[in-house]
Amino acid sequence: MLTDALINVGADGRIISVSPADGSSQQMQEMGPQESAAVIDLGPSTVLIPGLIDTHLHAPQWPQRATGLDLPLESWLFEHTFPLEARFADAAYAEQVWDAMVPHLLRNGTTTAVYYSSIHEPATTALAAACVQHGQRAFVGRVAMDHPDGTPTWYRDASAGEAIDASHRSLEAIAAIGGDLVRPIITPRFIPACSDDLLRGLGQLATETGALVQTHCSESDWQHANVAERCGRSDAEALIDFGLARDHSVLAHATHLSGTDRSALAAVGAGIAHCPLSNSYFANAVFPARRALDAGLRVGLGSDIAGGPEASMLAQCGHAVTASRMLEDGVDVTNPDRATPDSRLDIIGAFWLATVGGAELLGIDAGLIAPGRHFDAVAVNIGSDGDTGIDPDLDDWPRRFEKIVRAARRHDITSVWVGGVDVTPPAKK
Amino acid sequence: MLTDALINVGADGRIISVSPADGSSQQMQEMGPQESAAVIDLGPSTVLIPGLIDTHLHAPQWPQRATGLDLPLESWLFEHTFPLEARFADAAYAEQVWDAMVPHLLRNGTTTAVYYSSIHEPATTALAAACVQHGQRAFVGRVAMDHPDGTPTWYRDASAGEAIDASHRSLEAIAAIGGDLVRPIITPRFIPACSDDLLRGLGQLATETGALVQTHCSESDWQHANVAERCGRSDAEALIDFGLARDHSVLAHATHLSGTDRSALAAVGAGIAHCPLSNSYFANAVFPARRALDAGLRVGLGSDIAGGPEASMLAQCGHAVTASRMLEDGVDVTNPDRATPDSRLDIIGAFWLATVGGAELLGIDAGLIAPGRHFDAVAVNIGSDGDTGIDPDLDDWPRRFEKIVRAARRHDITSVWVGGVDVTPPAKK
Repeated sequence: MLTDALINVGADGRIISVSPADGSSQQMQEMGPQESAAVIDLGPSTVLIPGLIDTHLHAPQWPQRATGLDLPLESWLFEHTFPLEARFADAAYAEQVWDAMVPHLLRNGTTTAVYYSSIHEPATTALAAACVQHGQRAFVGRVAMDHPDGTPTWYRDASAGEAIDASHRSLEAIAAIGGDLVRPIITPRFIPACSDDLLRGLGQLATETGALVQTHCSESDWQHANVAERCGRSDAEALIDFGLARDHSVLAHATHLSGTDRSALAAVGAGIAHCPLSNSYFANAVFPARRALDAGLRVGLGSDIAGGPEASMLAQCGHAVTASRMLEDGVDVTNPDRATPDSRLDIIGAFWLATVGGAELLGIDAGLIAPGRHFDAVAVNIGSDGDTGIDPDLDDWPRRFEKIVRAARRHDITSVWVGGVDVTPPAKK
Repeated sequence: MLTDALINVGADGRIISVSPADGSSQQMQEMGPQESAAVIDLGPSTVLIPGLIDTHLHAPQWPQRATGLDLPLESWLFEHTFPLEARFADAAYAEQVWDAMVPHLLRNGTTTAVYYSSIHEPATTALAAACVQHGQRAFVGRVAMDHPDGTPTWYRDASAGEAIDASHRSLEAIAAIGGDLVRPIITPRFIPACSDDLLRGLGQLATETGALVQTHCSESDWQHANVAERCGRSDAEALIDFGLARDHSVLAHATHLSGTDRSALAAVGAGIAHCPLSNSYFANAVFPARRALDAGLRVGLGSDIAGGPEASMLAQCGHAVTASRMLEDGVDVTNPDRATPDSRLDIIGAFWLATVGGAELLGIDAGLIAPGRHFDAVAVNIGSDGDTGIDPDLDDWPRRFEKIVRAARRHDITSVWVGGVDVTPPAKK
């Protein structure tokens, strides 16, 4: 941690150097005329943290966030979520939602987001366009789902072939507008919603195009049992066989992985989007993050909007620590063997997941304020007018850090940069 | 739920009537000249909810909230918490903290708070005075603690006798200034920190004065075992024997109660301050709230600042639901018998705990916007400029309610009333 730092950012939006600031004119001159022309002094009540990376959220579920969490996964999907997602056939409605959502997430400090869109190509292209327009780094995926049992007639791809073609077209449409900032991602919803032909075809598409893949993996007793019955093996094994679990694949949840699954996924370079709050509601267990990291798996954090009710990735760090503690100590006091030792994350570990862990999962140069990385960063007000409750006389830097992660929320975030560009959204009307 | 209501509040701050509003002049006339002179129209983007009741928090731990949560309870107490509490020997420091804390809590919608203060009489009286000044309903307790093993030499009462005298004086000092709004509460820290003489003496003080009692009960494996070893019975049984668990006693945490404990506490009218987020860090188990309610126990919600890092009681409602779901489903996926069926709270149940449940625990006429109750209420902005994400076209009232509890935070709270008085703190500088 540097308490007074000078960060030199190049014209390409990447960090050239990070050094202790001495405020001298010589230091400014060494930066050269171009950079010194755009010096921003954040002042003493502001802390700069790396931009936060949300490795799993469902964009078309944005309007229903923080609702329906009393339902089991299947009724939540069929009665609430699929009907809402189906509305995104209306591209104008989609654009209106994206135009509210993307700035809201930036305002919360989410500089990179990995989105599930809906099954609709126009809405998905529009989501990529909204990310480009508002300046958010993103992976955007058209959802592919064709299985007659796992999807409703009124919200599914017509066939495996048509789904593969649509996903292919969507990759090209996003690549055409996204540049370095917004990239497409192949997105089979999850095995229960996809036919074998679709899963195999999308695995092949990943091989052909080199695009990343995201899907849900081993979330909940129900999904785990469904895949075991249909495929005769675990979700992780099936995804590897279909060519979908590969280098930098983003597998959401993965609460029900076995030790064998963890090793197999680590071997292919796939990783996990750990969504701690969502898992309390839909996964029937806590994702053992500590065990996954020890097995060499890549792990990032996800909000899982709207399976998780909260968009803030700083809040998600707190939830990750809380869930890990509940796993470590157990929950039912009548069971004397309830503990699962060595399960805890601390707040630094959780913040690492939300930054470096996410960047490594995705294979992007972000997550850290260090030379060579994109300047994706968030300025947090730690003054007495904010929410952090930091007392400069009482709190040393480790405590300030803990208070920032635990308590800073969108009203405390004063500026946001992605790729060196100030993308701070204007205050809401 | 009334979508357009007229609430008539008397000069004594209690609600006279709640009726559907028709906006007619006749309706205004029926209220009489005095009341109609002070009509407040909240407008269409504001929802009125009952004031929130925080049944357990430690005022002198306010400066360390959201820190130190990686420590076990004993080191957290001895290395962080007791040294901070000891600073409240300085009444000027105390006043400065109270003057920041009380408005912050009101701004979060906490209209009633049940405070542990420190062992210091001046700081404790000053806390009561700060509540009176800022208009917060409160129970304020000087902490009594004299046990040579459970407390440090530099932060304890000198003897049982002196502790009882100090607590008695503190009751009188608070009663002298608190009126109907702020009342004293007898506060032995917990059994491990108090001698038998002190516990017995404070039980007697409760009998003599009729003041309520608060303490910690059966929090963590460590406390549970400590009391079992020293007293040869459970915490609940010991507290009943000492005369401390009685009608409207507030027992914090109580994660480790047995079925026998629950019945015994229900029989004497004592209840539980359920602190779900704090319990994840320090209690080694989830408080089975559903089971406690089924046993007829009174239950309210508590933030447990600073064992819990978050002051918002709306946030606490979310944590209560989350914890109950983790208890119901279990956490360790390798254990096939991990579920504890019938443990879940829903968001309505959690909000009930934070309002009606808290009021019943304390025996106060609050927690509900209904005739005869104090008008303790909170106005929440649900407009598009706020955090609730409510879409009037999409969200019916049950969904709006869920979004308010899940997402509204202090920036969305526009007005706060206690006992009919507008006590909204000014915006922070």
